[in-house]
Amino acid sequence: MKAARFHAARDLRVEDVPEPELRPGAVMVDIAWCGICGSDLHEYLVGPNFIPHPGHPHPISGEEPPIIMGHEFSGTISAVGEGVTDLVVGQNVVVEPYIIRDDVPMGPDDEYQLSPDTNFVGLAGRGGGLSEKVVADRKWVHPIGDIPLDQAALIEPLAVSHHAVTRSGAQPGQTAIVGGAGPIGLMTAAILKAKGLTVLVSEINPARKEKARVIGVDAVFDPTEVDVAEEVRGRTGGKGADVAFECTSVQPVLDMLMDAVKPTGTIINVSVWMAPAAVDMERVVIKEITLRGSMAYAHDHAAVIALIQEGSIDLEPLITSRIALDDVVEQGFERLIENNATEVKILVHP
Amino acid sequence: MKAARFHAARDLRVEDVPEPELRPGAVMVDIAWCGICGSDLHEYLVGPNFIPHPGHPHPISGEEPPIIMGHEFSGTISAVGEGVTDLVVGQNVVVEPYIIRDDVPMGPDDEYQLSPDTNFVGLAGRGGGLSEKVVADRKWVHPIGDIPLDQAALIEPLAVSHHAVTRSGAQPGQTAIVGGAGPIGLMTAAILKAKGLTVLVSEINPARKEKARVIGVDAVFDPTEVDVAEEVRGRTGGKGADVAFECTSVQPVLDMLMDAVKPTGTIINVSVWMAPAAVDMERVVIKEITLRGSMAYAHDHAAVIALIQEGSIDLEPLITSRIALDDVVEQGFERLIENNATEVKILVHP
Repeated sequence: MKAARFHAARDLRVEDVPEPELRPGAVMVDIAWCGICGSDLHEYLVGPNFIPHPGHPHPISGEEPPIIMGHEFSGTISAVGEGVTDLVVGQNVVVEPYIIRDDVPMGPDDEYQLSPDTNFVGLAGRGGGLSEKVVADRKWVHPIGDIPLDQAALIEPLAVSHHAVTRSGAQPGQTAIVGGAGPIGLMTAAILKAKGLTVLVSEINPARKEKARVIGVDAVFDPTEVDVAEEVRGRTGGKGADVAFECTSVQPVLDMLMDAVKPTGTIINVSVWMAPAAVDMERVVIKEITLRGSMAYAHDHAAVIALIQEGSIDLEPLITSRIALDDVVEQGFERLIENNATEVKILVHP
Repeated sequence: MKAARFHAARDLRVEDVPEPELRPGAVMVDIAWCGICGSDLHEYLVGPNFIPHPGHPHPISGEEPPIIMGHEFSGTISAVGEGVTDLVVGQNVVVEPYIIRDDVPMGPDDEYQLSPDTNFVGLAGRGGGLSEKVVADRKWVHPIGDIPLDQAALIEPLAVSHHAVTRSGAQPGQTAIVGGAGPIGLMTAAILKAKGLTVLVSEINPARKEKARVIGVDAVFDPTEVDVAEEVRGRTGGKGADVAFECTSVQPVLDMLMDAVKPTGTIINVSVWMAPAAVDMERVVIKEITLRGSMAYAHDHAAVIALIQEGSIDLEPLITSRIALDDVVEQGFERLIENNATEVKILVHP
């Protein structure tokens, strides 16, 4: 089958690889669509990062480059392994793309995303969505009902945002400030709107500002034009936002969020910082701010699927291009590098 | 009456000032003992900080230097103002030394410590514990029963630690790591022990290490001798501490705590940082760490008084000197500067 494999930074090749083999307890998924994630782009530009280094196979998967990429994918079950009794061929599904040790508990309160050596299908082995087929264990497979397969490819990044919103403790009727309207910022804003919050967004890029308006946020502020924290206070009776989401890894955005949250407010960091952040501890103390990290997702896929099924999130504006797997380098990765602001999610079809 | 007044950095004078006047709704407290706090020392060395700058009176108290210092004090009621029906002359009390706007709600869920312009008696006006008498509104006065008056002067800093512990969500049976065994680190450790946690302490100074052992913590680790985070994991089944307390404002201590807490662990910052802290956001995300500030106290005094009354905290080892008000500069502030490590709490008697 065809697959896009990472060999090294800026060396992603679409090549022929053996099909994965079905095993007991697993299903074969024929990929329909796979999104390109910011972390994929990061691997492509300066990786390997999540992808294992050559000569250092991942401790769970045992794999090293070349590695098939793609972890935001949807597809249709084409074969069902021995012992899987509750899924059938022809069912549309998404895969929660974890590589986690078999002995990690998966109960409703278990934070399996934080278990040692956790990594992802499409980054550390076990195939990937930028190919024709993936075999996944039953526990990671989520049926999607009648959600269109292209929209379903957004369930994985939406689960990242859903997890961040859950970790923030956000409640309906509260006000959120989202720093940055890139893909994760927009999806976080979409989840927050679906959960019944007033959502304010800070963004400087005109195309992204427009996209935030299209998905229906309550206001977009440009920090080059206004004091965003002041605007947030102006819309919250002088109090500040209940929750904030750092989706940029840009220091002045974090500083603004520290200013914009109310006393006892919570800031969730969803972004990938390449250097330490400077945190004004005096402000953290005087406002009793909570700064918290959010890592991927755990038990979030079912909730996201339900939100989409009940029509609470309009995914169409978030899909900005659809391309073929053969074009994934030029029209996918390279296009995202050149044209980062107008694209939100590029979907790849094998 | 005699009072120690801040005129400027390193200019604290014991001088004669008018006695405060009793007013309706308030009581007159004859001071028994007043502790010298780290923040007092900070004002003395590089202030004014909490103390208003000359020419800029505090917006609530209307006062500016010279300012009577001292906010950790105990005493005996010597007069009761009109309308105060539930306190009597002769009762021993402590004062929660807030200067807060009269319209700030004080209900059980109200975070009155975070209201605008909040400051403290003994820093921003309304008298102070480094004098003979203070007049305080009824709502700030807490009877202490038969707690000795010298020990009662520690209730205020213990309330700081109690608030930090409450904000951490610490539960009995959990493990805490406390970074630094200065006064607030030791008191935080004492509160954590009283709450039934296993308490581990990181400290480099021999005198402070010894003091931590005396107050009964479970282990003291010296970061110049061992990898503290590794030791913490070794005592928690490889998991890491549930909660951590930053009581040093020293970057490597914060870094150690980030390493030593378990995934989803909470770090409470109790210390006063003079520069931004460098926070490894990748670790915050991958471990879903919560970093939270804790500001003074709110609704904590009654709980601390109860812990002392039931014998859960031994305060004697924390009182290291008792001096007269006339000696407060030389044997108090200057001694703390010269001999910071062996002193925990110096108590001043007017």
